[in-house]
Amino acid sequence: MGSSISEIITRDVRFPTSRGLYGSDAMNPAPDYSLAYVVVRTDEGLEGSGFTFTIGRGTDLVVAAVDALAEPLLGRDAVTLTADMGAAWRLVTGDSQLRWLGPEKGVVHLATAALVNALWDLKARAAGRPLWKLLADMSPEELVACVPFQYLSDAITPEWATDLLAGRRAGREEREREMRERGVPAYTTSTGWLGYPDEKVRRLADAAVRDGWRSVKMKVGGDPADDERRAAILREVIGADRRLMMDANQVWDVGEAIGRMERLAQFDPYWIEEPTSPDDVLGHAAVARAVAPIRVATGEHAHNRVIFKQLMQANAIGVCQLDACRLGGVNEVLAVLLLAARFGVPVCPHAGGVGLCELVQHLAVFDYVAVGADLDGRLVEYVDDLHEHFIDPVSMRDGRYLAPTAPGYSAAMRPESLAAHEYPGGAVWRGVVAG
Amino acid sequence: MGSSISEIITRDVRFPTSRGLYGSDAMNPAPDYSLAYVVVRTDEGLEGSGFTFTIGRGTDLVVAAVDALAEPLLGRDAVTLTADMGAAWRLVTGDSQLRWLGPEKGVVHLATAALVNALWDLKARAAGRPLWKLLADMSPEELVACVPFQYLSDAITPEWATDLLAGRRAGREEREREMRERGVPAYTTSTGWLGYPDEKVRRLADAAVRDGWRSVKMKVGGDPADDERRAAILREVIGADRRLMMDANQVWDVGEAIGRMERLAQFDPYWIEEPTSPDDVLGHAAVARAVAPIRVATGEHAHNRVIFKQLMQANAIGVCQLDACRLGGVNEVLAVLLLAARFGVPVCPHAGGVGLCELVQHLAVFDYVAVGADLDGRLVEYVDDLHEHFIDPVSMRDGRYLAPTAPGYSAAMRPESLAAHEYPGGAVWRGVVAG
Repeated sequence: MGSSISEIITRDVRFPTSRGLYGSDAMNPAPDYSLAYVVVRTDEGLEGSGFTFTIGRGTDLVVAAVDALAEPLLGRDAVTLTADMGAAWRLVTGDSQLRWLGPEKGVVHLATAALVNALWDLKARAAGRPLWKLLADMSPEELVACVPFQYLSDAITPEWATDLLAGRRAGREEREREMRERGVPAYTTSTGWLGYPDEKVRRLADAAVRDGWRSVKMKVGGDPADDERRAAILREVIGADRRLMMDANQVWDVGEAIGRMERLAQFDPYWIEEPTSPDDVLGHAAVARAVAPIRVATGEHAHNRVIFKQLMQANAIGVCQLDACRLGGVNEVLAVLLLAARFGVPVCPHAGGVGLCELVQHLAVFDYVAVGADLDGRLVEYVDDLHEHFIDPVSMRDGRYLAPTAPGYSAAMRPESLAAHEYPGGAVWRGVVAG
Repeated sequence: MGSSISEIITRDVRFPTSRGLYGSDAMNPAPDYSLAYVVVRTDEGLEGSGFTFTIGRGTDLVVAAVDALAEPLLGRDAVTLTADMGAAWRLVTGDSQLRWLGPEKGVVHLATAALVNALWDLKARAAGRPLWKLLADMSPEELVACVPFQYLSDAITPEWATDLLAGRRAGREEREREMRERGVPAYTTSTGWLGYPDEKVRRLADAAVRDGWRSVKMKVGGDPADDERRAAILREVIGADRRLMMDANQVWDVGEAIGRMERLAQFDPYWIEEPTSPDDVLGHAAVARAVAPIRVATGEHAHNRVIFKQLMQANAIGVCQLDACRLGGVNEVLAVLLLAARFGVPVCPHAGGVGLCELVQHLAVFDYVAVGADLDGRLVEYVDDLHEHFIDPVSMRDGRYLAPTAPGYSAAMRPESLAAHEYPGGAVWRGVVAG
């Protein structure tokens, strides 16, 4: 008997965000926030939803890659499969012909994330628990069995990880309660998109302060004078005590990043995010040495655990901005949480886009409860948009994410949102694409 | 008027190489050598062919990505477009929504290579010259204008590159003649595939020696005793004076690579190739320090110029094995040739597969004529198979590639080969896929 995986449905879902310069930055002037969305269904009605975040064109490529990766899952018993999520990860990532197209990067790895996240959602729903709680209730040995340690043994080992997780069990109930009652601290990126005029930046920053935000982020990397003028506005509005983060979205070379941050240092930025190519570990290390005590942050484009390992080995980052979908799903996220604990780097997940806030809240809460066990320097990105398309949207209070309570990974979209935004046939797109 | 790009045709072409364990290694037990193949055609009959190399499943994803990248090229004047190949590269890589799926890595970057290579083939055909000669005849300024310097300025600059290329013009005619008459040195990988039994390895190595090869490569990374037994056979057959290279195809962790090479050092390997994850710059540097004087070689999976920059900055490689299709086509290859010249690392391009030998001969000949200007330590990979499917196959003599003479980049396949191997409709696949 059992519950056999009978259907894996994929969808290309796009939101026309570029129409309002919403989400605009120095590298991505006009993104249409999108999802390569997948639902894994069993013949007994179990269901798991997952996705990866994209910004428009090419979402179809990721959807096709999910279809290719999903094939070996069809017909398998879902309960058996998700009972050993380490084996499930190896099954999804184990096709050597598809691996060649990365390895562990680009379209195929983004697709891996969508599918692996759907399996975790299914497992958590079947268990009737939110993902963070499912993870927190696993024993150190069970958790470690889910982690892909390949290529990490010069930094962390299964034995070390088991010891760490066992040590962090003390005080767990206390931290769980704290997460349910107060939640994890967040910062907002809704104020300083590069395409917004000064007046709008001022107005939004003012609103953010009134809404109780203690940390706000702005986009930089445009014309130097523009960046400085906007930074001055933001610093003026938020005052000296709140944190101002800056995000260059990869547009600078190494020397340029250092030079530009010399000028921007007067506005006391808390971190500089993505100062250069996300592949440039040594470049980030050089920037970090030059701009200290300003922290270097990166991760939304750090494509796998090997990149994070090196960023930490090289002291290149002071903030680990892992992405729930750029990494190969929950399993690889666990590896990076362990690396961050090993090197003492605070994890501040990348979010925003569409649906990323819904996912990363689970990761941040789990990290606090069971791995990092510390809130010092932990700030989860938050953008106040597109949450209404999800069945279990985030719940914010006083600039914090409250620990989610619904079973699963909060990835499931509302059916009507899915139908309206499917590309190119959904109502939102029909006229546009035809025109 | 002009010669407008009227058609960009893409093809999924696969060879059933896995049927004979041909190409088997520790990471890739059963590859079906494949091409995402593209032809750019103009209304006046100009044509350029390009491809990227894959190993079976997923080739359709790369083909779909080529289709997506090709769209902005349709209708453009081919002569104007290819007159400024720097601008052409930026046009192909400049879609920020598609960039998000990498950036500059994975399926989208592989597709970039196929399309960019087709444009270079078209340009060289229109000029009536083989690609290497087209490049060698460009002025330093023209060449530098083709190079994507973004993210490289902490290592090389356009000014430095112009000076280097100008300095290398002395002796150029002499080196060109040498390339036409004697060619670039090669080594063979046909002897030691991991799936071959001892007897076959011995027989092939013996044949390689009789054919005049001075350097042969074996696959390692399987069972340690098997690796040592096969290494002993090869060293015995080729003698002490010929070079024996070893290739682990990414299967080891850093510490494991060091330990395994301690045991294999007794067979005097010239290099250890892909000892660990291709993303692990610091890991390769640690291996290089530990195994010296054995060289560390990597590059076939080094996905862009930023990775090569770091491998060289960190003294992680003694051999640069760039790939003509993993990098974003000729433009990005030029960047890596310049980096290699800057750091004094010999370039030994990755080849084999299908069609890679046809491409890299141009790169190696151009490197010798105009950039590296040295043959010391330069060895181009050679595998003696699948050349018959190309209109202008490589021409080998005494273990060397003779400089190609036909116009273009030698990328065009024979129409009958293309038809027979197209997946899944070609004659080679029809029965297999239906069954």
